[in-house]
Order: sequence, then structure tokens, then C-alpha cells
Amino acid sequence: MRLKKFINKPEDFVDEMIEGILMAYPNFYKKAKDSLREIVRSNSPEQTKVAIATGGGSGHLPVFLGYVGEGLCDGVAVGDVFASPSAREMYNVTKAIDGGKGVLYLYGNYGGDVMNFDMAAEMAETDNIEVETVLVRDDVASSKNIEKRRGVAGLFYAYKIAGAAANNGKDLQEVKSFTEEALDNTRSMGVALSPCTIPEAGEPTFKIADDEMEIGMGIHGEPGIERTTLKQADKVSNIVIEKILADGPYEKGDEVSILVNSLGATPLEELYIIYNKVKDILKGKEIEVYNNYIGNYATSLEMSGMSISLMKLNPQLKTLLDAPAHSPFFNQQDLRDN
Amino acid sequence: MRLKKFINKPEDFVDEMIEGILMAYPNFYKKAKDSLREIVRSNSPEQTKVAIATGGGSGHLPVFLGYVGEGLCDGVAVGDVFASPSAREMYNVTKAIDGGKGVLYLYGNYGGDVMNFDMAAEMAETDNIEVETVLVRDDVASSKNIEKRRGVAGLFYAYKIAGAAANNGKDLQEVKSFTEEALDNTRSMGVALSPCTIPEAGEPTFKIADDEMEIGMGIHGEPGIERTTLKQADKVSNIVIEKILADGPYEKGDEVSILVNSLGATPLEELYIIYNKVKDILKGKEIEVYNNYIGNYATSLEMSGMSISLMKLNPQLKTLLDAPAHSPFFNQQDLRDN
Repeated sequence: MRLKKFINKPEDFVDEMIEGILMAYPNFYKKAKDSLREIVRSNSPEQTKVAIATGGGSGHLPVFLGYVGEGLCDGVAVGDVFASPSAREMYNVTKAIDGGKGVLYLYGNYGGDVMNFDMAAEMAETDNIEVETVLVRDDVASSKNIEKRRGVAGLFYAYKIAGAAANNGKDLQEVKSFTEEALDNTRSMGVALSPCTIPEAGEPTFKIADDEMEIGMGIHGEPGIERTTLKQADKVSNIVIEKILADGPYEKGDEVSILVNSLGATPLEELYIIYNKVKDILKGKEIEVYNNYIGNYATSLEMSGMSISLMKLNPQLKTLLDAPAHSPFFNQQDLRDN
Repeated sequence: MRLKKFINKPEDFVDEMIEGILMAYPNFYKKAKDSLREIVRSNSPEQTKVAIATGGGSGHLPVFLGYVGEGLCDGVAVGDVFASPSAREMYNVTKAIDGGKGVLYLYGNYGGDVMNFDMAAEMAETDNIEVETVLVRDDVASSKNIEKRRGVAGLFYAYKIAGAAANNGKDLQEVKSFTEEALDNTRSMGVALSPCTIPEAGEPTFKIADDEMEIGMGIHGEPGIERTTLKQADKVSNIVIEKILADGPYEKGDEVSILVNSLGATPLEELYIIYNKVKDILKGKEIEVYNNYIGNYATSLEMSGMSISLMKLNPQLKTLLDAPAHSPFFNQQDLRDN
């Protein structure tokens, strides 16, 4: 089977994609130095705020590069599809964004990324750049042990809260602390219907029958909780939200933000059918929905599937969530009811 | 084969989707009367401006409902998937949005929609509501005869220009005239890689081999210009842009806006690879790119494919294109380089 994709040479996929992004938004993004894999905001470094670095494998737009923006992250190290960038790339990004107030590393809990970001932090230390790390581990399906969980669409909430805290002039420890609080309050779970294909691999990331779905599958095709026959949207929504509520700190009377995310090929229409049900379930439990984000926030190329994330709010987190944010891929205003 | 979709009963697909949208943005949208198929802005009718109505089959989000917003359209009649809404629905929307300055009907050139909007215009006439119509016919692949062409992603430019002209206080004839000018300057063409499945039909809209693509295919699977083996992205971009340039009013020294649109499942990554090449081709022809829109602007459920649209600009069209616009699905700011 040929790749049903608009690509040239598979090995050029990531570089050409980044060239396209730099071409599309020349005043917004720049290279940290010479490499296409080290991208920072064009106004970097900013002396007035803590900087936020992220990074990880490609294939998840708007994660990661799309969350480099005003009120979000300051720089990103870009790996090959589903593969970690190098420690050197992370370090170069760190150097390019540090304005003297330190750098928060904020990324998903995947082995290669953790190893490389830790090495980059050591390299930065020799330059006297203060670095702190917050790992995103929101995927309840990935492990019973929170420390071992993977980061999925909850990355969005982490970026939004951290970016707002940094913009508000909080210091590195405070930015870290708000971000950890946000993540303590955030849980996600996904359901996959069909795989994607990594251009260089040329094969689907997993096999799944025409009448099957996988509950809890990870964004790279990591095994989930249960492979089952296709169920109706209401039933699926119910399974996912019950799992999230059972795991997280959500109680009657709480206010939450909801993120209903497409993993790629699942159309917006279906996300609204899911949202319709999720909101209804939460209403039945007297959990109030403060706001919602519905769309493609963390994808896996053309994977068909969706994830639901909940973040429990308090007055401080609300203020940070509501703060303006802007990148070519995300605008706070277009997602809020107004 | 079961439907790999997050749906409940296929016949409830559209209504549940609209319920989800109304639930998500309760202060932004409302029903014109009682029906879920007649949606208008919550501040309708506005006495101060010409109103713009659109409509058509479901399955194309953000087309059509997503372009009801500030600086865009005022109301929409929503049909079943890929099917025209009724004349009665269009008429009810018309009544709900008319603030006394008349209503522009702005939609894609499809038989059922044309018949029903024309009937709705006659019904509105008996209420002394002035109605004008502009048909969107941007798809160069659909016919050599411009009058017979279908409307595809160029709808976006039509909404943007018409909405800005109406917001600027132009009268109905002027809004119509600016919109026609924009469309005279706009051409689009798409390429499909794989079909989508209408929930109620349960079958893919067309068949295509694993090693094939169809150049010029319509957004409902209408036949294109050529079915061919898969080609590299640069080659495809070249074919599409050459066809557009040969057909439209584009000349050396012109400034254009580019829209690179995913038909659904094609990921953002691939759109940037296409944009990279398109911008390069235009540079070679000394056509300057004023701005760009890259993403899911007019889709066909989970169809895999993309389209490219070009609008040639002049000072007035630039001003209208740059005017603020906002809906839960589109925000002018997040798409502009800044």
C-alpha cells in the first residue's frame, strides 16, 4: 500500500512541514540558531518573564509547535515523527529563550523526552540557566501509577496555565507550582477507531478490525484498557467520563473545563455529539462546566479517535485559563463563549 | 463494515451535533424559532446592518454553521448530511435575521440549495424583506462554464468579505457587489485521497484504490478532472496551482490570499508541506502572498484530501479581508501573521 498522504520524500516530512510553518508565520516564529528543529518565538528571549520550553515527536499538531505563542510556550525542540528531539536541540532552545528568569521544561512523560530534557537541563546548568521540569501525565488509561502515566491532550491545559502564570510575572517556582496544581486537577482518556501511518515507517501504527474500537489507547497507538466492538457515542462518552471522574479529584459542586479533542481524522461534528453527552452526564452529577475547548488540540496525524480531558478549576486557575493567549494555531478568544 | 464514527443513531447525527454546538456556545447562537435546523446569531436581528444568510448540507464544518459570527454570516439553514435544507427553514432564518436593511443569500452553487433559497426569497418578498443572492462557484475543476461551477472552500472568502462589508455599513447592493468582486477574484481546486461515509448511508461516497488520488474531485465526491496514481506533494501542488492560475485573473505583480484547506482527515502537517511549495511556485511567478489561511476551513466529514484557493486582492478587498471576524470556529486574529 502506498502512503495516502501529501508528502514528498518521507525523510523530508518534518523539515518541509517546519519550513512551511516558518514561511507562513515569518514574524511569529524563528529558528533558535540554524536548525529547523529548534523553534522559538520571534521576540525571544524576553527579559521580563520565565520562559517555557516544550518538545517531543512530530505528528501531533498543534502539539507541540502550535503552542509556542503569546501566553503559551516560548520555544520547542522538534523531533522526528513520534520520536524525541535531541538533548542538544532542547539545550539550544533553552539558551535562545532564557531571559534570565529561568526556564520551565513542560512536556509529556515519554522515556526519550525525559532522558533528553534531563540532559539538556544539565547542559543549561553549566550556563547558569535555572531549569525546572513539570511532566504532563494526564492519561488515566496508561497506568494505575500516576508517576508512570503518559501525557496526552492535557498538555494543552498545562501550556495554557503555565504560559499565563509566566506572563503574569510569576517566578520560576510559582510557574512550576501553578502548572503542577493544574495537572493535579487534570485527567484525560482517549478512544481510537483507526491508526495513523508514520511517513518513514509506511505501515499503520497498529491493526484494528472494522468493527472494533480501543478504549484508552495512547496517541502513538500504545495499548489501552479494552478493545471492544464499536459502541454508540453516548456509551463511549459515558465510559470515558466515568473513568476520568473515578480517577480524578472531581466532586459534586465543582467547576471544570472540558476539552473534547480529535486525534486527527475524527470530524468536528462527532466531537459536538460527544460534548452534548458529556455535558449532560456532568450536569447529572452536579459538576458545572465553566468552559469548553472542542477541536483538534493534540492529534496523531490522521488517526481516527478522540479524547476527553477535564480540569477542575479554582479561582486562580480560572484567571489563568481565561488569560489571553495567541499563536497561529490557537487563540483563546475563538474558543470561549462570548 | 460498521461505521467507524462516534455517533448514536445515524438519523440523529445532525440534530445531536447542533445540540452540542448550542450547548457549547449558548450565548453565541440561538434557534431562529423552534427548529435545530435554523440557527442565527444570538443578537439577531441587528437593525444597523445588512444581514447575511447561508446554508447547505451538514458534514462540512466549519462550513456552514461555523461561519455564523461577528463579521461573518448572521444565520444558517442546516440540512441533513450533504443535503439541502428546506425553503421554509431558509425563510425562517431570513425572517429572524432581517433588521430592515435586507438579506444577502450567500451559498454554494448546488441544485437543491439554489431551488430552495430561490423559493425562500419569494416567501421573504411577500414580507417585504429585500433579498439578493450571490452564488459561490469557485471550483475550477467542476466545469469549464463558470456559471455551472460548484462552491467549495472559496465560501470562506465570500463570507469574510461579505461579512466585513455588511459590518462596515454598506447597503445590500454594495455588499453584494463586493462579494461578487471577491468571488470573481477567487478560484479553488481540490484533490481527494479517500472518501467519507455519510452516517445514514453507511457506505463510502466513492471508491478509490490504495495507490490512487483524484485531482479536482468535489467535496461530495463529485468526479474530478483526473484519477491518477499517487504523486508527491510538490507535484500535486504544482498541478493544482497551475490550473488555478490558468483559469483565474492572476498576473505577475498581483497580491493574493492563499487558503490551503484540509477536507477532513488530512493533517495540518501535510498542509504546511503544500503551502511551502505553493508559496515557492507563486514567488517564481512574481505573485506576492499577502496572507494565508491554513487548516480545516471546509471539510467533508473524514474525507482525506485538500484544496487550494487563491483570492486576488486590491486595496478594498484587503481592508475587508483584514477586518476582525469571530465565531467559535474562526477568529481572524489567530490566522494572521503578527
